[in-house]
Amino acid sequence: MDASVFNYRNGDLMVEDIRLRSLAESLGTPLYVYSTQAIQTNFRAYQQAFVGRPYLIAYSVKAASNLAILRLIQREGGGCDIVSGGELARALKAEVDPQKIVFSGVGKTALEMAAALKAGILSFNVESAPELRLLSATAQSLGRKAPISLRVNPDVDPQTHPYVATGLRESKFGLPVGEAYQLYLQAKNDPGLEIVGVDCHIGSQLTSVGPFQAAAERLLVLMSQLKAAGINLKLLDLGGGLGIDYHGEKIPPVAEYAQAFRAIYAAFPGLTIILEPGRSVVGAAAVLLVTVLYDKITPYKRFIITDGGMNDLIRPSLYGSYHVIKPVKDLDRPLTQVNVVGPICESGDFLAQDRALPLVEAGETLAVFGAGAYGFSMSSNYNSRPRPAEVLVSGSTCRVIRARETSEDLIRGESF
Amino acid sequence: MDASVFNYRNGDLMVEDIRLRSLAESLGTPLYVYSTQAIQTNFRAYQQAFVGRPYLIAYSVKAASNLAILRLIQREGGGCDIVSGGELARALKAEVDPQKIVFSGVGKTALEMAAALKAGILSFNVESAPELRLLSATAQSLGRKAPISLRVNPDVDPQTHPYVATGLRESKFGLPVGEAYQLYLQAKNDPGLEIVGVDCHIGSQLTSVGPFQAAAERLLVLMSQLKAAGINLKLLDLGGGLGIDYHGEKIPPVAEYAQAFRAIYAAFPGLTIILEPGRSVVGAAAVLLVTVLYDKITPYKRFIITDGGMNDLIRPSLYGSYHVIKPVKDLDRPLTQVNVVGPICESGDFLAQDRALPLVEAGETLAVFGAGAYGFSMSSNYNSRPRPAEVLVSGSTCRVIRARETSEDLIRGESF
Repeated sequence: MDASVFNYRNGDLMVEDIRLRSLAESLGTPLYVYSTQAIQTNFRAYQQAFVGRPYLIAYSVKAASNLAILRLIQREGGGCDIVSGGELARALKAEVDPQKIVFSGVGKTALEMAAALKAGILSFNVESAPELRLLSATAQSLGRKAPISLRVNPDVDPQTHPYVATGLRESKFGLPVGEAYQLYLQAKNDPGLEIVGVDCHIGSQLTSVGPFQAAAERLLVLMSQLKAAGINLKLLDLGGGLGIDYHGEKIPPVAEYAQAFRAIYAAFPGLTIILEPGRSVVGAAAVLLVTVLYDKITPYKRFIITDGGMNDLIRPSLYGSYHVIKPVKDLDRPLTQVNVVGPICESGDFLAQDRALPLVEAGETLAVFGAGAYGFSMSSNYNSRPRPAEVLVSGSTCRVIRARETSEDLIRGESF
Repeated sequence: MDASVFNYRNGDLMVEDIRLRSLAESLGTPLYVYSTQAIQTNFRAYQQAFVGRPYLIAYSVKAASNLAILRLIQREGGGCDIVSGGELARALKAEVDPQKIVFSGVGKTALEMAAALKAGILSFNVESAPELRLLSATAQSLGRKAPISLRVNPDVDPQTHPYVATGLRESKFGLPVGEAYQLYLQAKNDPGLEIVGVDCHIGSQLTSVGPFQAAAERLLVLMSQLKAAGINLKLLDLGGGLGIDYHGEKIPPVAEYAQAFRAIYAAFPGLTIILEPGRSVVGAAAVLLVTVLYDKITPYKRFIITDGGMNDLIRPSLYGSYHVIKPVKDLDRPLTQVNVVGPICESGDFLAQDRALPLVEAGETLAVFGAGAYGFSMSSNYNSRPRPAEVLVSGSTCRVIRARETSEDLIRGESF
């Protein structure tokens, strides 16, 4: 994926044609800065890989949910993979075509189902037998048929972080292939259901195409069995999950990923393949800007204390994630071994540990790379800290797409 | 600490004199339910342990920051330990006496310092030499003197989770004793500073008094040295950190904790001891109510899928924390081995793993115990989920102290 919109030019780290330093100065930090060009490039790579075949790229809203990002995807012709009523409301607000929306997740409520049915979404990715029953009942009570794909658990090891591996048999997600087959037979005659596809999702931040291919092969066997039983599918949703280069990971190009599906198109011409990329679209398309507050030297460690903490970006603390960090001013200076930490009162509040960084000083701005996915969307008000602003850059223009929270926002809804 | 306000009565789990089931029915779930009586009992235990001696119990706002909880502490005569400008604003809004507020944290900004100086707080717990310089400069620019305690790092192992151990020498927190001594000598003649005390904090969820005693002994040595140098301290802030019984932990009574400080009072009569309890005041004083959405049986695991997820309570996912879970209806039923999970699309989204629970069914409400501290305060909108409501119960009355968020709240401040 393309992160080349973040480059030094004349000693300044740029996002497209804007100095990150200027953004920090005018808008303050911590600040999430997204590049339109990077998002477009990443998203278009998926579309280009499928040119000439039926496909839908349903952006995974949970990765970065800002309305302006969804609107950008919508303008590119993309759809949305949603996992909650809140994400449905966001996608509709951004005017995403409901027929390009798929609804995933193990815990859909009847209220969420009803809202999605009324909106007329493309498909519910159903994860369990009791969910299928509730969906049918909900649809019937509205005089509708719910379009469904069953999420099959292919039991493929994605070789990623356990928290984001989702296709193992011990996982809460999906259905074993055998159970899915039986449920399809039941659903065929259910007045509240309309079978439209099959779905799977094996994990996130995958760095090879092999697991996708293995999953696709298992689904092909199921689809052939279903065809023999008179069930023809229009959609095959292969989920998301292609990784990004956080720290030297080698990621296969999207075209190679699409090649993995050639056998499927050959066997089922006319089938629409759905992909649900999130991280690979926005992950490398944003940085989190933070300001150095203190350079604290102890006899044991040197701490660069910044104004960005685990409430702003929890990935290092929650997953042990590595994010490249660079000063926005490119000066010739020696490297020092430091821990980059936030202001939160917890030892788990760090952005980088034992990292060789150029010697920085208080007041200076640092860019935390790869912050676009699961950055702002997982942010919190922990330690009563207002959440950062988000800005979207395009060329030499910049738009605030989410205002920085104030201390009034912190207490909204509270009374004493 | 006292969690006895949550008991079954006639088959219903109660909070004080209210059925938790009724709260779930009328207010929906997920729902944080706090008990006034439990908070008062826990807070008063600290006060009673110090009767007859000068002390200040400065409640650690970050544990649970709701204005109504701060107001309750204020009415009990308590103060606040704050770690941000947002927490300062909260404490002042709840009308906490500024002379009962101490400001901790490694990343105070000049703006936050100025706000606290103007409010006239009791003490800044200063964590580094550069912070001390900035504080002095900020105070002088306002024509004031900043009251300071230096946070000393006693290098005591609190034997707790590494993320909440804060007093080890490799930690980002505090100053080595030797460096603190030198800084005190400098501060003595600094026109922007007024030395008022010494501070330490060794960690959170501690289950024995020993580490506190060890820390206190090290601080006593420093205080004697300072006295010899003509620096007399009014305050000794020993931080927070007494644990709670999440799952059978044996916690010494608060009185025993206070006994550990007898030697200090003997050596420095007139000294005010400050404690900063958070978890031990509110942790066991609240439950998170969640509703069972699905009972999903797979060949490998049985999943109780609830409407409460890691965005509502991240402790199990972030720290591997154990929280007791009980149905609000006490029926005679067999135990089954289950994973209690949320609706978030992540395998890391769980409330309990491999837990023996009474067989529950969809629609039923479960109470997640020990949810009062670092529960709501760490909650997020991940997966575009509105944050839960918070209610405070007193006897047979119940007050919503924070309204449930709506999908409008999710997109506030965004534009596209």
